[in-house]
Amino acid sequence: MTKIESLYEEMVAIRRHLHMHPELSHQEVETPAFIADKLEEMGVEVRRGVGGRGVVGTIRGAKPGKTIAFRADFDALPIDDKKDVTYKSTVPGVMHACGHDGHTAGLLGFAKAMVAMKDELPGTIVLIHQFGEELSPGGARGMIEDGCLDGVDLVYGAHIQSKMENGRVFVRDGFLQASEDALKIIVKGYGTHGAEPHTGVDPILAASHIMVALQSIVSRNADPLKELVVSIGKFHAGDADNVIPSEAVLEGTIRVFDPALRKLAGERVTAIAENVARAMGASAEVIVETGYDALWNDPEAMDIVRSAAIETLGEENVIETSPVMPVEDFAYYTQVKPGAYFFVGAKMEDDRLSFPHHHENFDFHEEAMLIAAKVFAATYFKAQAM
Amino acid sequence: MTKIESLYEEMVAIRRHLHMHPELSHQEVETPAFIADKLEEMGVEVRRGVGGRGVVGTIRGAKPGKTIAFRADFDALPIDDKKDVTYKSTVPGVMHACGHDGHTAGLLGFAKAMVAMKDELPGTIVLIHQFGEELSPGGARGMIEDGCLDGVDLVYGAHIQSKMENGRVFVRDGFLQASEDALKIIVKGYGTHGAEPHTGVDPILAASHIMVALQSIVSRNADPLKELVVSIGKFHAGDADNVIPSEAVLEGTIRVFDPALRKLAGERVTAIAENVARAMGASAEVIVETGYDALWNDPEAMDIVRSAAIETLGEENVIETSPVMPVEDFAYYTQVKPGAYFFVGAKMEDDRLSFPHHHENFDFHEEAMLIAAKVFAATYFKAQAM
Amino acid sequence: MTKIESLYEEMVAIRRHLHMHPELSHQEVETPAFIADKLEEMGVEVRRGVGGRGVVGTIRGAKPGKTIAFRADFDALPIDDKKDVTYKSTVPGVMHACGHDGHTAGLLGFAKAMVAMKDELPGTIVLIHQFGEELSPGGARGMIEDGCLDGVDLVYGAHIQSKMENGRVFVRDGFLQASEDALKIIVKGYGTHGAEPHTGVDPILAASHIMVALQSIVSRNADPLKELVVSIGKFHAGDADNVIPSEAVLEGTIRVFDPALRKLAGERVTAIAENVARAMGASAEVIVETGYDALWNDPEAMDIVRSAAIETLGEENVIETSPVMPVEDFAYYTQVKPGAYFFVGAKMEDDRLSFPHHHENFDFHEEAMLIAAKVFAATYFKAQAM
Amino acid sequence: MTKIESLYEEMVAIRRHLHMHPELSHQEVETPAFIADKLEEMGVEVRRGVGGRGVVGTIRGAKPGKTIAFRADFDALPIDDKKDVTYKSTVPGVMHACGHDGHTAGLLGFAKAMVAMKDELPGTIVLIHQFGEELSPGGARGMIEDGCLDGVDLVYGAHIQSKMENGRVFVRDGFLQASEDALKIIVKGYGTHGAEPHTGVDPILAASHIMVALQSIVSRNADPLKELVVSIGKFHAGDADNVIPSEAVLEGTIRVFDPALRKLAGERVTAIAENVARAMGASAEVIVETGYDALWNDPEAMDIVRSAAIETLGEENVIETSPVMPVEDFAYYTQVKPGAYFFVGAKMEDDRLSFPHHHENFDFHEEAMLIAAKVFAATYFKAQAM
Repeated sequence: MTKIESLYEEMVAIRRHLHMHPELSHQEVETPAFIADKLEEMGVEVRRGVGGRGVVGTIRGAKPGKTIAFRADFDALPIDDKKDVTYKSTVPGVMHACGHDGHTAGLLGFAKAMVAMKDELPGTIVLIHQFGEELSPGGARGMIEDGCLDGVDLVYGAHIQSKMENGRVFVRDGFLQASEDALKIIVKGYGTHGAEPHTGVDPILAASHIMVALQSIVSRNADPLKELVVSIGKFHAGDADNVIPSEAVLEGTIRVFDPALRKLAGERVTAIAENVARAMGASAEVIVETGYDALWNDPEAMDIVRSAAIETLGEENVIETSPVMPVEDFAYYTQVKPGAYFFVGAKMEDDRLSFPHHHENFDFHEEAMLIAAKVFAATYFKAQAM
Repeated sequence: MTKIESLYEEMVAIRRHLHMHPELSHQEVETPAFIADKLEEMGVEVRRGVGGRGVVGTIRGAKPGKTIAFRADFDALPIDDKKDVTYKSTVPGVMHACGHDGHTAGLLGFAKAMVAMKDELPGTIVLIHQFGEELSPGGARGMIEDGCLDGVDLVYGAHIQSKMENGRVFVRDGFLQASEDALKIIVKGYGTHGAEPHTGVDPILAASHIMVALQSIVSRNADPLKELVVSIGKFHAGDADNVIPSEAVLEGTIRVFDPALRKLAGERVTAIAENVARAMGASAEVIVETGYDALWNDPEAMDIVRSAAIETLGEENVIETSPVMPVEDFAYYTQVKPGAYFFVGAKMEDDRLSFPHHHENFDFHEEAMLIAAKVFAATYFKAQAM
Repeated sequence: MTKIESLYEEMVAIRRHLHMHPELSHQEVETPAFIADKLEEMGVEVRRGVGGRGVVGTIRGAKPGKTIAFRADFDALPIDDKKDVTYKSTVPGVMHACGHDGHTAGLLGFAKAMVAMKDELPGTIVLIHQFGEELSPGGARGMIEDGCLDGVDLVYGAHIQSKMENGRVFVRDGFLQASEDALKIIVKGYGTHGAEPHTGVDPILAASHIMVALQSIVSRNADPLKELVVSIGKFHAGDADNVIPSEAVLEGTIRVFDPALRKLAGERVTAIAENVARAMGASAEVIVETGYDALWNDPEAMDIVRSAAIETLGEENVIETSPVMPVEDFAYYTQVKPGAYFFVGAKMEDDRLSFPHHHENFDFHEEAMLIAAKVFAATYFKAQAM
Repeated sequence: MTKIESLYEEMVAIRRHLHMHPELSHQEVETPAFIADKLEEMGVEVRRGVGGRGVVGTIRGAKPGKTIAFRADFDALPIDDKKDVTYKSTVPGVMHACGHDGHTAGLLGFAKAMVAMKDELPGTIVLIHQFGEELSPGGARGMIEDGCLDGVDLVYGAHIQSKMENGRVFVRDGFLQASEDALKIIVKGYGTHGAEPHTGVDPILAASHIMVALQSIVSRNADPLKELVVSIGKFHAGDADNVIPSEAVLEGTIRVFDPALRKLAGERVTAIAENVARAMGASAEVIVETGYDALWNDPEAMDIVRSAAIETLGEENVIETSPVMPVEDFAYYTQVKPGAYFFVGAKMEDDRLSFPHHHENFDFHEEAMLIAAKVFAATYFKAQAM
């Protein structure tokens, strides 16, 4: 662990370099090249272009043992960086506003420390540097298909959290992050003059009834003990105050953990939209676009992180957390191999600098990278020992 | 006309007798017997039991002429008379709260006056004393089927109005009173414990959505230039606050003049209830029970009343009125023969005694009977002269 | 009348010239100049720039008599002319799609005919050529303020109607066209992530509830015998499917004849929007922007047109019409002076060329201009004779 | 434990006696007398009439130790027993349909076994036989006020569950059962004739809008990770299809664990009802009647049951359960003293005899009484040993 601590400055430098040169999801070119070069410099065996734009490094320990994968994502977001820092994004409208730069730097630091002890190392470390996490269909499934989990026994990942206290990690058995499906409801009426509603079919009224009725999915159809969100974020219809338009469009999102409830929610959205539209003399086309699945932590795999983190940070700094509604395509790794995902507190010391993820002023406590790397290392050794 | 005026006291006596002995719709026994006896006393040719409980009198004038029918209804209402008058109802819970006692007395007065001038009278007068107007299916259709309009050239009727000024009559070409259909919507869900809504289907929520959506029939589906009312008067569901019931029942009424809009309204109620219920996972059974048709005044037949009334009461006392939403089974007479219906103002002089029809304190200015009889007579002679 | 018939070709030429050179409301420059020049050519006394861009001509007859005004509007619409005719608009995106070119040509034809018989003419003719009718606040009020009705005894106007049969005119006592008010409802919630609705206030849901509840104004608050329309033509909120926005905006229109109901409707919109928003934890700002008043035809003034039209076209071609929900700022003239407005059928012979007003293929039967001019003339003489 | 097993037949006999003689909540007379007599027969020190109708027994062990209370409720329900068994209720319309007879018999069996080993027993056992659990305000608070927990170190209770597998117990740290508040919403409009809605204010429409809008409390205002139910079980308004009534009444229930969310839910119901009513021109009176609090299991107290149950039944028969929405006034005991409540599986072997609690055919596997008594005993000894 001493080794990892000594690499902190290097992690910070890498993170800040990446922060200044962010690349959008599924458009990453320089970032994977930079990562692959860094890994090769360290002497790590590298495969580029995995599943498209991913990079996979492999560190083979001298001793026998399990093969354990660690994943960090490296894509940025279409947000304009508004921070006033030396490492501010140099690309207008693109920003590492979710901390993936930190994930990458942390994993590279962890890799470098592991390489240094390669000769005494049991097992094999697989470093999964993933592209395109922010934008469905994500990079995970492509990389898995392209073999990044082949031969892997356990898979781990972590996300820094700008609103959780620095110095702590947050763990949870079972579902940690929700699934997401995107909704689009196109309500078709029949346009007419606003003064003669009886000669048309009002799609705004039909869509409003649908919007209102959608609330019943959560309030009536979902088991109150199961988490579900159905939100509509867009409602667009019409161009003139005195013309009834021919169409109204709703767009929204479904977030849920339980797969059966996820299926039910999509079916209920469809049934409500189609039948309410019909009731109003209109029709509705409903598109439920499948997004990421819910992320499920294998309790045994999680337990290894839990113990490793307690050893590393002390019991008081390992917190059982609630599940969260945002999504994460790490979900696909634990569908294939036992694995777990956890959160690393990264709250800035100065509260005024503490912004939510995806905010244009987002930043995080860089020490979180070090903590992530340390917990990865402790998890690795604990898993090998079991 | 002098003749009619002289009969006023007699009309008042008859009316007050009837007022003290009211009989419910389709249960009239003493009233038609009383009327038939009175007519026979006058020497009028009488047919009893017409279409069930109706009485038809015929006065054949000595001279040739048209056959013209005049109709008065004679049923009372299930209301407890709360007035403090000598002629208060003697039957608990039953009351002439709509003025049909006055209609009957007025028509009998008119008949007696006509009989008196039988020898010089052109044409034939048919006196239609109708039962059961207040309660669908009404008495009109039965009496028509039983021949009360056979050979009739024109048919007239009038309703006293306790909220319209005494001394005036109110006329209108075309639609005067609305049609009525009764609605019943039975929403079937699936009952369950109130704490576990997801294990059932909430019929109260489905029925509430239906109630709300029904408003769109008037606001969106009806031509704004056409009159329509869709009202729900009952909403009953559930017995316990913490149990979701299996059923909710709505009952209501549709009032409209235009037959095409009437048809559309019924169809829209059905489409809304069935599809909204389906949207909520429930089902709905919709019963639209056809009530009275809208009452249509033939403009030419009405014009005879208009001129006759102007001659009788002066131009300032003959008012063009708006159509009204309450129903009247006189509608069926004008579907078969040209005819017209008009209102006779009967507002009490003392404003504190002026109550709406069907009110437990209802009373009316008795002079209205005299005016109705006079306008009937003037209408009769004018019609014969044309 | 022979005189007017002989001017038909000239009217057609003027109309087609105007059709090729349309100008938008409140931007008219060439059109009023053209009209004023034409009138001066005829020898009519002209005042330019009346109330802004209006033109008023005065023809003083040699004999004493009433002063009677006739009004035609001359503005065009922001619509791209798609017709395939020789007189198609030469201005991209601007088109005489409502027939105001025809109104102008008809009034100029009428004027020329009247000037020709000036020496035998009783009374005075005021020709009101009005700008900006299509766009509130309209040109009428400015022209009235600037004196165009000073000394006028009666004021008349007419609108050609592309969907009413050519050769006929359509008349009505009382309200002929509705009033209009524009609605804007800004619903303010509190934006948040779509996965965490409880941390925000959903303005789309609040606005949908408002949209639905607005239906009750027509269905419950309006007298079913009175005409009212409340329509929402725009509903705009949100940019992303997974973000709950902070605001939703509704825009709509209120159409009504009765001024008390108009007031009530605006108050109800405000009460519903504000209180429903409050119920949902949001707030609503409601702007009811007053548009044109309802157009009321003085029955006596209308009766002169009715008789004049019957003489001119025969009884079978003078039709009593229903009121219509579109607006017309002729309303302001009859608020100041007795007057009446009527419709002139202008349906194309070839049904495939029959489009509604404001349609990009709109055209009309040009004979309607001749008929309007003839009825104006007959009305003038009849009014002088009374 | 052998001792307890040998008492099984006696427990069955007691349970069946109670089953045949059920008494309604807050009307119990014979039942507490029967219990007190039984305890006194055993030589247990008894206090009658505790907090009203409760019975508290105390068994003082010969050795020093903790004072640990065990509670069983003994009231029955207003349900007609429809089972075909020899021990069927003899009281028409009253039935032990929730298993409180079994709770009582189990606790008495446990008591008898403990009394038998009194001389070697460490600590003190408090037996809380509680009345009126089924009907708020319940018996718990009165008994606590009357001292039943005075000097008590730990308090335990258990509920048999007819739908959970016999032979198992079900445990949970933290919230186990929801809180409950009863809702009553009285919506006041203004009654009128159904044909003239504009002359009144429709309370059915207002109440329907409220019903629909209430769904948003769960769907929008509650944290999706927190459990909440807001259900309306009654909606009553109106007597006639063609009369708009003056009032509509909704009754419902709020179920929730988190006290802050409970408070928010009540406030939101009030805000929605009052403001939506106001929006529709009506008014609403909202009564939120506070019912039982949520039942919270102290994790340490629960852990003692967990270990005791594992020893008694084996690890595979001790199941971590989800919280449930029904309420339980055991909640008040753990507000005062550390304690825990658990479920004892009592599913009938014959699936056709397995009915939900409160069902008219409800019955349970009587072995569950034995298991409850055994786990109580094991818990007692384990708690003393800590």
